[in-house]
Amino acid sequence: MTPYEFRQSVRRGEFTGNTAGICDGYIQANVAILPKEVADDFAGFCGANPQACPILAVSEAGSPYLPTLGKDIDVRTDVPGFFIYRDGKFAGEERTLLQLWRDDFVTFAIGCSYSFEHILKTAGLRIRHLELGYGVPAYNTNIPNKQVGPFGGNLVVSMRPFNAADTIRAIEITSGYPNVHGAPVHFGDPAAIGIRDVDEIDYGGRSEVRDGEYPVFWACGVTPQVAMISANLPLGIGHAPGHMLVTDLPLSTLTSN
Amino acid sequence: MTPYEFRQSVRRGEFTGNTAGICDGYIQANVAILPKEVADDFAGFCGANPQACPILAVSEAGSPYLPTLGKDIDVRTDVPGFFIYRDGKFAGEERTLLQLWRDDFVTFAIGCSYSFEHILKTAGLRIRHLELGYGVPAYNTNIPNKQVGPFGGNLVVSMRPFNAADTIRAIEITSGYPNVHGAPVHFGDPAAIGIRDVDEIDYGGRSEVRDGEYPVFWACGVTPQVAMISANLPLGIGHAPGHMLVTDLPLSTLTSN
Repeated sequence: MTPYEFRQSVRRGEFTGNTAGICDGYIQANVAILPKEVADDFAGFCGANPQACPILAVSEAGSPYLPTLGKDIDVRTDVPGFFIYRDGKFAGEERTLLQLWRDDFVTFAIGCSYSFEHILKTAGLRIRHLELGYGVPAYNTNIPNKQVGPFGGNLVVSMRPFNAADTIRAIEITSGYPNVHGAPVHFGDPAAIGIRDVDEIDYGGRSEVRDGEYPVFWACGVTPQVAMISANLPLGIGHAPGHMLVTDLPLSTLTSN
Repeated sequence: MTPYEFRQSVRRGEFTGNTAGICDGYIQANVAILPKEVADDFAGFCGANPQACPILAVSEAGSPYLPTLGKDIDVRTDVPGFFIYRDGKFAGEERTLLQLWRDDFVTFAIGCSYSFEHILKTAGLRIRHLELGYGVPAYNTNIPNKQVGPFGGNLVVSMRPFNAADTIRAIEITSGYPNVHGAPVHFGDPAAIGIRDVDEIDYGGRSEVRDGEYPVFWACGVTPQVAMISANLPLGIGHAPGHMLVTDLPLSTLTSN
């Protein structure tokens, strides 16, 4: 299935699930949708926290389209699920934004670690959550984001377990892809970044770290949603964690060097 | 002091020590000197084990000069110390090769991890053995080298301790320098690569791994000397571990991408 065909199936309501492993070889994006009056601050927040929030595209105000990311993308219908935040609190999930859309909304598409999982697999690494059929496990940390305007909060990380040799390879490979979170921010002792127990997941799938493996933590695109909550806005919208916008851009467009 | 001035002080016998931290910013090289009749096999061994034995230069047979590596280099006098191997056994140390030199000797200069330590320091990482004033600790492992002709043996690794964040940075940085051993081969549990205790050092300096740190292991240029021993040659010569040839080549010539 091409990314376009996949987005059409999302638009028709046929696919409403986690996009882990979908359309291997294409960039997936986190989505953040905010009123125009805070869009500049949010862009600044992303720029100040590039490992968590690498911006792939920004829409025109009021436009639900992201033409640089793919054919006929309408963010209102082409993402499998949305989280709605009101006054700094989670306020429910929506399948589409056709009812909620406003003509002052600006959409940010932000790089997602699902994009580099295909590259890791191609290099022979095994991705535990994909093999188990789950979304990637993600956690709140105690690492503060750089505050810009009302946006702050702490870094969210995703986790994949690897042995030492594969951890080294994963670091080598992902450091070449800064637009999809780049190298890990931490590995090993979860408590060092404020995670009490890797089995207690804050967002996403399921964790299974086996003997001889390290949990390896990457900056995660859920971070902008935490920033949105911290900003205490009347209304902000993100993708449902793990439910990404699948773009038409091949991963090869991400290579930085 | 320039590398040329440093080599002159070695030639005059004024400097006979470990070259860790000497002439920051210039490539240092491991040295292997072998009779011409086994030089092709040794070149093949290096090619088959590039992480341990990245070749920087090879001399003409009988010539002690390495003109591509620096001004007026005479390997017989410009390396602070040599290990002599006879019939597969260590047979003593020499300050110069002026007595032992033969007109069928071929010199191999091989990349050395001392070269990237300056790069790691520039990036803000702290190199424990330099801060303590020792050579880098190095160990025999149970990882077999790829055998070519008579040359085999197991990989030798050097070790630097880092916390998780600095381990990630060290992997990111050194993976860009394949000509000086590239990324680490292992970190964490030493027993996984056949090292019983990091405090029991086989070559070089002293180890001090502190709480919250991992021992991080890189392929080491002592490996060719182990290969020389395994080949059971009548005569082979290497640099004394830690006593490197300091070249005129700036580290910037190493950048691979």
